[in-house]
Amino acid sequence: MKKIRLGIVGCGIAARELHFPALNELKDLFEITAVTSRTRKHAEEFARLVGNPMVFDSFDELLDSELIDAVDLTLPVELNVPFTEKAVFKKKHVICEKPISINVENGKRLVDLYKKTSQVIYIAENWRHIKKFYKIKDQLYKIGKPLFFTWNIWVRLDVNNKYVRTEWRQKPKHIGGFLSDAGVHHVAAMRLLFGDIKWVSAVDRKHSDYLGDSDFLSALFEFGNNVIGNYVVSYSINGEEKFEIIGDKGKIKLIENKIIVNEEVIEIEDGLGYKEEFEDFYKVVMGEKENNLGSPFEALKDLAFFEAALKSKGNKVNISDII
Amino acid sequence: MKKIRLGIVGCGIAARELHFPALNELKDLFEITAVTSRTRKHAEEFARLVGNPMVFDSFDELLDSELIDAVDLTLPVELNVPFTEKAVFKKKHVICEKPISINVENGKRLVDLYKKTSQVIYIAENWRHIKKFYKIKDQLYKIGKPLFFTWNIWVRLDVNNKYVRTEWRQKPKHIGGFLSDAGVHHVAAMRLLFGDIKWVSAVDRKHSDYLGDSDFLSALFEFGNNVIGNYVVSYSINGEEKFEIIGDKGKIKLIENKIIVNEEVIEIEDGLGYKEEFEDFYKVVMGEKENNLGSPFEALKDLAFFEAALKSKGNKVNISDII
Repeated sequence: MKKIRLGIVGCGIAARELHFPALNELKDLFEITAVTSRTRKHAEEFARLVGNPMVFDSFDELLDSELIDAVDLTLPVELNVPFTEKAVFKKKHVICEKPISINVENGKRLVDLYKKTSQVIYIAENWRHIKKFYKIKDQLYKIGKPLFFTWNIWVRLDVNNKYVRTEWRQKPKHIGGFLSDAGVHHVAAMRLLFGDIKWVSAVDRKHSDYLGDSDFLSALFEFGNNVIGNYVVSYSINGEEKFEIIGDKGKIKLIENKIIVNEEVIEIEDGLGYKEEFEDFYKVVMGEKENNLGSPFEALKDLAFFEAALKSKGNKVNISDII
Repeated sequence: MKKIRLGIVGCGIAARELHFPALNELKDLFEITAVTSRTRKHAEEFARLVGNPMVFDSFDELLDSELIDAVDLTLPVELNVPFTEKAVFKKKHVICEKPISINVENGKRLVDLYKKTSQVIYIAENWRHIKKFYKIKDQLYKIGKPLFFTWNIWVRLDVNNKYVRTEWRQKPKHIGGFLSDAGVHHVAAMRLLFGDIKWVSAVDRKHSDYLGDSDFLSALFEFGNNVIGNYVVSYSINGEEKFEIIGDKGKIKLIENKIIVNEEVIEIEDGLGYKEEFEDFYKVVMGEKENNLGSPFEALKDLAFFEAALKSKGNKVNISDII
């Protein structure tokens, strides 16, 4: 089987703790042949961890090295669009960490490029590869017509959290800080279950002083299939988790990896989806499947939810007006 | 102690099952001296239950009888305003079941009358007399600054429910059917805890075909003290109850009569508040206290929430624009 020669760009938390463990299980599909980071020291440390690929001082040198077929971008969000554009210009395939970009306008550049290029542009939204959401989707028929979905998420990051301490997260150039950065995962999962979101009315708040931007959102919205959604998330204060889908003939709850369908309990063995994500990227690059799960357009829709929600201040904002 | 001679007008569920048991415990304060209902048979049955007061064929005759100091109106909502106006014109005090009226415009007539008359106009909102909400209010300081309140209520009335079968509820002239009829209780409790509501953005739905009007509401709103609220209610479909107040230093949950303040559990012996309500009405009539709990203006604010929510369709509606 042909291996994809991969250059990893950015050697931070995502590269070390999320992508590398997955790639390490997929040595028959990927070979890490090059790395680069903001500082050489950082890149060299990472290189030692992943099997001593070539270390480059700059992204340009890595792209020009002829050592790679694709790049894996794990960068501050504001670099996603320019770095992807440069890689595609150099005829490299791209897998790039979510969120797609700092805002919808900026993200549209990748959607436009995606339509024109024959290179793969794959936005890595690992929650589109988490099994439990597909399992829930399979169970929906048991509750009749879904009518209402509520999701309350309390992340409660403390001041010493490794993500909180990331410099680019402390002074975010991306809209809504953690709200969009982490939140696109939640919207990806919701859209996977109920389809596109038509409009949102929301209020955001900044309750803490160490999370860079707003850290609380309460949103009311409607999916294309008329399901009404409530999504409440905070990265600082702490409430009771709730994930509940109500249909006219029953309800589904999710408690960690336990799906409760009416009275029936289904336990799911589940991971974070990174391995499945890279397997999917591989198939897309090989032309074995379409890029439905890594499509920049899907990633843009996830982000657009937050742009609409942050613009809302309690007013109704149609997603189609901003995308 | 001087007794108030009370004429009961309307002998339906509220008179029989809610008001009479309370009045029966307050024989030192009230004497039921007259009753009337839509049909004489109905009024006579009720008269036998409550100690054989005089039965009148019409409200006018009851008002002119000189047997009463006050009327207790337990009527289809659309009669609240005209009957109260007539009683006040005849120099009688009024205690009238919630909601104040069929809509805000109509209800304003009672607020205007209330400002001008020396008769008492008391809108009977028993939830303003339920102890557990005051107990919760007393506990709020333990969770720091309240930031977010969520209340999910699933009433699930079936087609044979006695309230559902009431004719005036099946073809409601009051806005939103059960949403406002039962919902003003919830808003009274919320406002008791956090004060007035500034604006609301909401979606209503009609999921059943036997509840007269919309039977589901999901609302996002903000109180004057900046607390964000989520209120979801359905009278047909069924989810998991949730009452949770989140502050920057903890949270309060209410599960039936159990208040959970952080780790502390407080059990409350509580009734429905009707006895306390009539005691309060008595004091107001006797000039012993101001009419803060039965004020038509407070009842109008409870109703205005639903008028705003039903008008919203996902848009932000300021309560001050409709009240």
